[in-house]
Amino acid sequence: MSYVRGQIVGMAGYVPGEQPQAGKFIKLNTNENPYPCSPAVTLAIQQCLQQGLTRYPDPLATAFRQAASDQLGVPPDWILCGNGSDDLLTILTRTFVDPGRLLRMPYPSYILYRSLAEIQGARSQEVRFRPDWTLGADFVAPDPDLRLAFLPNPNSPTGTILRPEQVLELARQLPCPLVVDEAYVDFADQHCVPLVRECERVIVTRTLSKSYALAGLRFGFLVAQPHLIREMVKVKDSYNCDALSIAGATAAISDVDWLNENRSRIVSARRRLTQELRACGFTVPDSHANFVWCTRPDWELKPIYERLKNQRVLIRYMQYRDWGEGLRVTVGSDEQIDAFLALLRCELPASPSEIPS
Amino acid sequence: MSYVRGQIVGMAGYVPGEQPQAGKFIKLNTNENPYPCSPAVTLAIQQCLQQGLTRYPDPLATAFRQAASDQLGVPPDWILCGNGSDDLLTILTRTFVDPGRLLRMPYPSYILYRSLAEIQGARSQEVRFRPDWTLGADFVAPDPDLRLAFLPNPNSPTGTILRPEQVLELARQLPCPLVVDEAYVDFADQHCVPLVRECERVIVTRTLSKSYALAGLRFGFLVAQPHLIREMVKVKDSYNCDALSIAGATAAISDVDWLNENRSRIVSARRRLTQELRACGFTVPDSHANFVWCTRPDWELKPIYERLKNQRVLIRYMQYRDWGEGLRVTVGSDEQIDAFLALLRCELPASPSEIPS
Repeated sequence: MSYVRGQIVGMAGYVPGEQPQAGKFIKLNTNENPYPCSPAVTLAIQQCLQQGLTRYPDPLATAFRQAASDQLGVPPDWILCGNGSDDLLTILTRTFVDPGRLLRMPYPSYILYRSLAEIQGARSQEVRFRPDWTLGADFVAPDPDLRLAFLPNPNSPTGTILRPEQVLELARQLPCPLVVDEAYVDFADQHCVPLVRECERVIVTRTLSKSYALAGLRFGFLVAQPHLIREMVKVKDSYNCDALSIAGATAAISDVDWLNENRSRIVSARRRLTQELRACGFTVPDSHANFVWCTRPDWELKPIYERLKNQRVLIRYMQYRDWGEGLRVTVGSDEQIDAFLALLRCELPASPSEIPS
Repeated sequence: MSYVRGQIVGMAGYVPGEQPQAGKFIKLNTNENPYPCSPAVTLAIQQCLQQGLTRYPDPLATAFRQAASDQLGVPPDWILCGNGSDDLLTILTRTFVDPGRLLRMPYPSYILYRSLAEIQGARSQEVRFRPDWTLGADFVAPDPDLRLAFLPNPNSPTGTILRPEQVLELARQLPCPLVVDEAYVDFADQHCVPLVRECERVIVTRTLSKSYALAGLRFGFLVAQPHLIREMVKVKDSYNCDALSIAGATAAISDVDWLNENRSRIVSARRRLTQELRACGFTVPDSHANFVWCTRPDWELKPIYERLKNQRVLIRYMQYRDWGEGLRVTVGSDEQIDAFLALLRCELPASPSEIPS
């Protein structure tokens, strides 16, 4: 006899990208930043550590909310902090989606959304992107059970993005909150935070894992109208962010120069990586994130991923049921990209012109 | 129109003890340890910080599991780590309790349990302690909806404890898992981890917030049989513990000498605090935790709490519906206890013999 909910027993569970704890890998599989975080972050954490960890942290991370308010131009009480944006996506699901109701998301996108629905005992509905990576009327189609929609923007694994006016149009047509998951938006040219004022159904989530090089710290935040924040506060764990992460995140978001410089390096490397992969024969949509998505239906992609892994270069092989497969490659440093491309070229099938007749 | 689940709108939300962010308080309200953590913890966090935070942390905190396994004598895969034990209590509720089903807990105890049931859309049932602070047959009474029981041991706010053989007897009679919340057990003489082998329904949770002086770090763990751990892994956020907390917690649990010395100081101070409060006229049950519980039905206790707060000494005033009220006082340092007692004595009603006739 199992004591576990049938819902949980029946689910496979979300499997995050490989995080090898031993050995040296060129790690281009989970969209970590190749550069160390701002020195201001390290300093702030050291100072917090010297003050000691005996006391509980501030439940609402007031210092971070104020600093983020200064950067984003929304009041502090429009901001909710989380233990990574995964924590916030969980809080959102538990705040808005009753068991049995419906959670909607695009396809292909972040696989975790479906797991969150499963854990909640809710149904999920995946709506396919159109060939130009926009979303059609089916994404906003009425459904009496619809309670929440997730929209990763830029999307993973594709790196594609909807413009804010397109997002606002979706939010206006939806009968429920639209969570715009902006995990990668610092690598894009536009973002949706201003929409939160215009439409109470728009909620924007952010993480410091990617663009602030702080995946190890676990810190994210969301922006929503304050009457929604107040309800989400009831659902979150009281002390969901620790004292060191609050101190580090506050320093990180205040160091705008570091962010801009890091962003420039990643965007420049992304341009080169995209060109080289296209030259190798892959189809690569223009990316607005810190990764690129490579497809090529006539090649077997999984063996390429596996042979690279054997040579200690990790990229992400992703297969989407009824849709297709691809390789998602994080934009690393120039040296990492060079090493990856050199190995990749050895693994690719020879192009037809090179096969001796 | 609200987009929020009715369940959430209708709940008040758990309110943690006050955490003043400004001003200097003698803080005896949330059971923090008065002494700084082991120097080994600070060192481990500094080393981790120097290695950088760009990479995601180990999803299962393997290093901590191994270190805790060495200390507790259970295999590493019997251990699940969490972002504080609150995270683990949330994971447990979501793993075992379907919406509409029943979660049972003693009364009075940790108020959060009821909030966790509410968020999950489950019902909760509070079973009163008997006058000797044991639990009777009603705690194990069959109910077709019963899915999980929480037992804080030592209990909060009372500091009382059930012996392991009493806990095992409850677990054997219950039809569902029994979570023994051992947040305070390092200040007691016995614990229930060995019961996990004897009965798959026993799950033990721990936190490093109290006895390791790491409330600011957010780290807890639980011990359960591995088939249950595997299901809970599906429910937790992938990266629920950050890299710095894993490093710090691993160092903390390995420093047994620090724990033993800290424990001795707290237990000794607890003895004195208990005696002094009894001498003041309070009823104080023998405590097995790092706080004491003071009642006195013929005194108004809330004004005492308030006047102490005005003098920057924070203790916890707690009122339990249909049960009564009391003051919960954390065992601080000797200096903190002296300052608290001196102020308290000024605030107490004069004893009858002192009132001039």
